[in-house]
Amino acid sequence: MQIICNRSTLLNSVNIAQKAVPSKTTMTILECLIISAKANCIKLTANDMELAIETILDGEIKEEGSVAINAKILLEIIRKLPDSEVVITTNEKYEVTIKCEKSKFSIMGKTTDEFPGIPEIKRNNKVTLSQFALKDLIRQTVFSISDTETNKIMTGELFEISESEFKVVSLDGHRISIRKLQLKDSYEPIKVIVSGKALIEINKVLSGGTDDLVYMYFTEKHVIFEFDNTIVVSRLIEGEYYKIDQMLTNDYETKIIANKKELLNCIDRATLLVKENEKKPIIINISSVQMELRMNTSIGSMNEEIDIKKEGKDILIGFNPKFLIDALRVIDDEDVTIYLFNPKAPCFIKDKDETYIYLILPVNFNAGVN
Amino acid sequence: MQIICNRSTLLNSVNIAQKAVPSKTTMTILECLIISAKANCIKLTANDMELAIETILDGEIKEEGSVAINAKILLEIIRKLPDSEVVITTNEKYEVTIKCEKSKFSIMGKTTDEFPGIPEIKRNNKVTLSQFALKDLIRQTVFSISDTETNKIMTGELFEISESEFKVVSLDGHRISIRKLQLKDSYEPIKVIVSGKALIEINKVLSGGTDDLVYMYFTEKHVIFEFDNTIVVSRLIEGEYYKIDQMLTNDYETKIIANKKELLNCIDRATLLVKENEKKPIIINISSVQMELRMNTSIGSMNEEIDIKKEGKDILIGFNPKFLIDALRVIDDEDVTIYLFNPKAPCFIKDKDETYIYLILPVNFNAGVN
Repeated sequence: MQIICNRSTLLNSVNIAQKAVPSKTTMTILECLIISAKANCIKLTANDMELAIETILDGEIKEEGSVAINAKILLEIIRKLPDSEVVITTNEKYEVTIKCEKSKFSIMGKTTDEFPGIPEIKRNNKVTLSQFALKDLIRQTVFSISDTETNKIMTGELFEISESEFKVVSLDGHRISIRKLQLKDSYEPIKVIVSGKALIEINKVLSGGTDDLVYMYFTEKHVIFEFDNTIVVSRLIEGEYYKIDQMLTNDYETKIIANKKELLNCIDRATLLVKENEKKPIIINISSVQMELRMNTSIGSMNEEIDIKKEGKDILIGFNPKFLIDALRVIDDEDVTIYLFNPKAPCFIKDKDETYIYLILPVNFNAGVN
Repeated sequence: MQIICNRSTLLNSVNIAQKAVPSKTTMTILECLIISAKANCIKLTANDMELAIETILDGEIKEEGSVAINAKILLEIIRKLPDSEVVITTNEKYEVTIKCEKSKFSIMGKTTDEFPGIPEIKRNNKVTLSQFALKDLIRQTVFSISDTETNKIMTGELFEISESEFKVVSLDGHRISIRKLQLKDSYEPIKVIVSGKALIEINKVLSGGTDDLVYMYFTEKHVIFEFDNTIVVSRLIEGEYYKIDQMLTNDYETKIIANKKELLNCIDRATLLVKENEKKPIIINISSVQMELRMNTSIGSMNEEIDIKKEGKDILIGFNPKFLIDALRVIDDEDVTIYLFNPKAPCFIKDKDETYIYLILPVNFNAGVN
């Protein structure tokens, strides 16, 4: 195999494909990127068995062929090459030489025979949206997936499409994040659980332009994201997602409107008194038009007042500050509206049209001590 | 005690003083910053017994007094406060409250009784130079101090002043870095060993302006750096520094001039093939007007050619690539001149006026294998 391409194009493609290279694996072939040059098309492929990425590389094929190269070493070499033409050549022993200007690297590649290819999938159920919108949906929900594998379903996100509404849900047992988007077209109903880890990687690769489109295809076992020169195939998580509708309600006893940045900064300040792995609630005392926030830990205490608009009853309630911070950080609105019932019931942070809903469970605290 | 100051001024001062707070210590009082408000002057002080920093804080004293506050917690609080007026108050129990706008923190302080104050030192032997020059001298030499405490002298830098010449030397057994500076005035001879760790911290605090001055005072046991509103006192390292003059020479068999950036990038590229903790030399083959650099490791091999200007004999020599990179990185010249003798003798990278000299020992290698 011999290909010629531009160094910055190559770097960009390697950066995309290597997102599907597992950081830990016992199969050394999975640590490789596959370069395949066939039928006028150069492809870079990586596959960690859950997530596979294939991206097309602009370049010239001098000799067809394919080779597996350790992704980390390839990336480091390309990164440090001068911005010029790169020639990658392999011989029948899978020795790879990478030439750029006067620099010449030789490393050992592998045959691609053992590499698990991207599953051949029929592209049904095509759904179209902008990369910008998908990036936003992921960013604004993926923080509340569970990071422990004990409950596989919680490590994923619900993707639910019904007519022209696209709903994304994540939850971890303490909170639920819901984002809704109106699609341009209407679709057959789809309800699948997409791996959160895959979405995090996809989010890094999406360019995020409002005019750049991404096409999603759904099958029984997989979801495919197609955008720019790249295809991402992710194995769906099997099982039935939690019924969250019964946890949602439009009733409330207290409704407040606060400046998002002010509230976020205040909670953020309070957390500096919390030691790592220490669980301390932030106590919120809502009375008249003031919201008082308190934190009390072994390091010290903080209290701060924030001006709010309030409807309904006074309330004293405690939350894990991290959960409030996570939700407030991804909300782009200047003001946030928070709905509360009582100190044992979850709060809801949501906008008028419910394009986002963040449900957060409160925590018990000893009001006397705090 | 009660003081009022501006948050950004306070943050700046805390940032300076906390450079002398040890990251690890068994004496909890050393983890504190001292705020002392007396005689119209607010001072922040930290002391790790080797290095002490005292900086004056602009602000208003409402009530005189002093308190010791955990430096890390104080810094984190100040960092997260809004940019406004900060009021710090302590009571007789050393409870500290920090108020800023509607935010109020309470933490426990300590009496300052146990805190080791900055040693009272007579300010003799004043030497004046610009902060810019001192910053440069440190940056361009401090990388080659030894980081192991087995040889205390190698962890420091020689500061030698003779008339108007200021010479700074560091060495670690494999290389020597020498920087010389012409001072504006002439001074009595000074020859001391200054802690490298202290110099690294001082370098972070120096503003580095060409018009901003720094005054150095030398006593038998200490060096004092005085600049802006800050005094840094560092305990000198006792002992006699190595006689390095006998290792220096102006003779050479081969002299080359190379583009610094090109050479640095090439060696940097080669090192990506070196695994952490693996010792592999970069082999340099100088013949006619070409310099060939080669690296051969378990990962793969690289070779690259660089155009040079050459005088004298051809030579094949190996170096620890890190040592070449360290020296080349701090040299600000576009071209570097390298002087060589034979594969067993050190190379010298130096400029015409010898304002800098970097001596680097070569390493043995098996020419047949490499």
